[in-house]
Amino acid sequence: MLGYGVFSVGGGTPRVGWRDGDEVTDLSALGDVFMQPSLNALMALGRDASAELLAPARAHDGPRFHIDEVTAQLPVQIGDFVDFNSSLEHASSIGRMFRPQGDPLPVNWRWVPIGYQSRAGSVVVSGTDVRRPNGQRKTGDTPTFGPSERLDIELELGFVIGTPSAHGEPVTVDDAADHVFGVALLNDWSARDIQAWEYVPLGPFLSKSFQTSMAAWVTPLALLEEHRVESPLQEPPPLAYLDGGRDWALDIPLEIELNGEVISRSNVRTLYWTMPQQLAHATSNGAALRTGDLFGSGTVSGSEPGTGGSLIELTQNERFLADGDEIVLRGRGLAEVRGRVAPAGLIIPASYGERPIVLPAGVQALRSGNGEDPGQRGGP
Amino acid sequence: MLGYGVFSVGGGTPRVGWRDGDEVTDLSALGDVFMQPSLNALMALGRDASAELLAPARAHDGPRFHIDEVTAQLPVQIGDFVDFNSSLEHASSIGRMFRPQGDPLPVNWRWVPIGYQSRAGSVVVSGTDVRRPNGQRKTGDTPTFGPSERLDIELELGFVIGTPSAHGEPVTVDDAADHVFGVALLNDWSARDIQAWEYVPLGPFLSKSFQTSMAAWVTPLALLEEHRVESPLQEPPPLAYLDGGRDWALDIPLEIELNGEVISRSNVRTLYWTMPQQLAHATSNGAALRTGDLFGSGTVSGSEPGTGGSLIELTQNERFLADGDEIVLRGRGLAEVRGRVAPAGLIIPASYGERPIVLPAGVQALRSGNGEDPGQRGGP
Repeated sequence: MLGYGVFSVGGGTPRVGWRDGDEVTDLSALGDVFMQPSLNALMALGRDASAELLAPARAHDGPRFHIDEVTAQLPVQIGDFVDFNSSLEHASSIGRMFRPQGDPLPVNWRWVPIGYQSRAGSVVVSGTDVRRPNGQRKTGDTPTFGPSERLDIELELGFVIGTPSAHGEPVTVDDAADHVFGVALLNDWSARDIQAWEYVPLGPFLSKSFQTSMAAWVTPLALLEEHRVESPLQEPPPLAYLDGGRDWALDIPLEIELNGEVISRSNVRTLYWTMPQQLAHATSNGAALRTGDLFGSGTVSGSEPGTGGSLIELTQNERFLADGDEIVLRGRGLAEVRGRVAPAGLIIPASYGERPIVLPAGVQALRSGNGEDPGQRGGP
Repeated sequence: MLGYGVFSVGGGTPRVGWRDGDEVTDLSALGDVFMQPSLNALMALGRDASAELLAPARAHDGPRFHIDEVTAQLPVQIGDFVDFNSSLEHASSIGRMFRPQGDPLPVNWRWVPIGYQSRAGSVVVSGTDVRRPNGQRKTGDTPTFGPSERLDIELELGFVIGTPSAHGEPVTVDDAADHVFGVALLNDWSARDIQAWEYVPLGPFLSKSFQTSMAAWVTPLALLEEHRVESPLQEPPPLAYLDGGRDWALDIPLEIELNGEVISRSNVRTLYWTMPQQLAHATSNGAALRTGDLFGSGTVSGSEPGTGGSLIELTQNERFLADGDEIVLRGRGLAEVRGRVAPAGLIIPASYGERPIVLPAGVQALRSGNGEDPGQRGGP
């Protein structure tokens, strides 16, 4: 894999590095934009200028480290995080489970690249544990609050903005790629029980906002040229402002690994809506782009068995994450996203003492009347 | 009105000022946290430290300006922006219009303080024009793309975070106020036609993300103590993690002015869910708070005629904003939010030339095959 990231060695100052396979080269001697705690300064240079730096960066004879010697951090200072829902297969299979009475695909889906704003402050770097979230779920006549019993993953391809755009000036499908610096895999952890109870009418909120894990290394868009293919046919034809950008599907094989075993294989190229269409849609109302904005593709799922991008799809709503499970998402040529499930934290306000909390199997009962002592919480 | 903001005079360096009525005092001589382009450094001091600075700031004998002499800017560098939907009256009346077949109030509403992530990068300071957004609406058998014909306002009270919280450590209802620096009015501009077509299943996106206007002056929480009252009765009683904070309803009379005429009068105190409950909910899954995070109450609407916080409620879905309309939101003791509607920008990619765009009455037909020339766009 090839890409830029931000790393430190032995508690030193974070700086930008280039990762090539298992080797990381310190680029900080190459200029100010590389002596930074994020890629934002580099990304803000724009497509042409950052493309010119790519060859010197790859050839740079700076200090080199094995990947195991460095501590990588979140590579981007994220502005806004928008998550799309651009896989026809994922949207249909989730629709079938969440809305069993209705049409699995919402009536707007083939017209609108459906997306929503998600929580930028909850994006963390690969390798960070995910703590099982508490939340409201409806299991009986009335809802209860407690650890999610349906903690899931979502395998997504994210892209980050380099060149900003002005408020009031939409980015067209033809110009979209000029604004994108590069791509990175995302695991958009999701609590399905919390989601099912909260999402009508304003969409997913706490079921998503507890954590999204991002790869530590961002692969520049320039390196993806050879993977570009035509996207799946769109029927009906998209409206004029989305007409184009179908040459930006990406042939990138994907894998999901659970506790060392590959449980899914898919490919980014199956996504219905492409990156230029997503970006043209997201800015069609005049919303501005800032350097560091992150866009997720939505879960990438194929149509065959064993190609789902989430457990709810792979197991037909039967199996979810247990404490201690480790998930690794991989994409050919891209950096992995790794995360292990830590038990729910049980912060108990005094008033909780009076009411029972229902704990799922496998979650240790560490509750106490005192929420102050971190030792009282379940930890990894 | 009383509050902190960030201002400049004659193109000088932005700094923090204190506004008292029509007078603004330059606080930059009081210390580094006041010589800043945002309130974030001041807010990050935390509740006690910033409270200690309040008396010296109010008494400071620095340079003074009339409000008309200064240029105020967005006072906060916003992290994440979460918008709630905490008015029972607003939720019910919108539900009646958007889901005429069903129960006007979603079944989860009295259990869950419904909210969603909104777009931080689209928050602008009071006084900024709002450009009518383009977007997809469903008016016939198939959707069309063009300027919103149902551009609306939402009168909200926002609060901003001073003291951050750690990822994985929920804020309790009892501790919530310690994290809040102050409040400011918001106008969460909304395109109802775009919203109706896009919002199932992932919630409002482009119907909201084009712009939210925020007051230029933030009133510290310490100054609201005298306005605290008990919130409306909550039935059924909230779950344990939301049990408390009902002493944080705020008796703040509100007004909406359209082109100089008052068209609505309401009061913040009618909100069903309070700020501590909103914050406890938003962090109950472990999401962290960052200094600068912005939370909106959701539209504040009363139960009587003439108390709606949006035009769709005030006019029973009959009248929306016309180009040139000016809206001013006022709250007793708070800074106003002002904004004028500018005509839709018509960025026309080459491919648009082949397809018609339907323009609403009042929107000038400035379209052209060439989207490059800013002179081709409708502007204020």
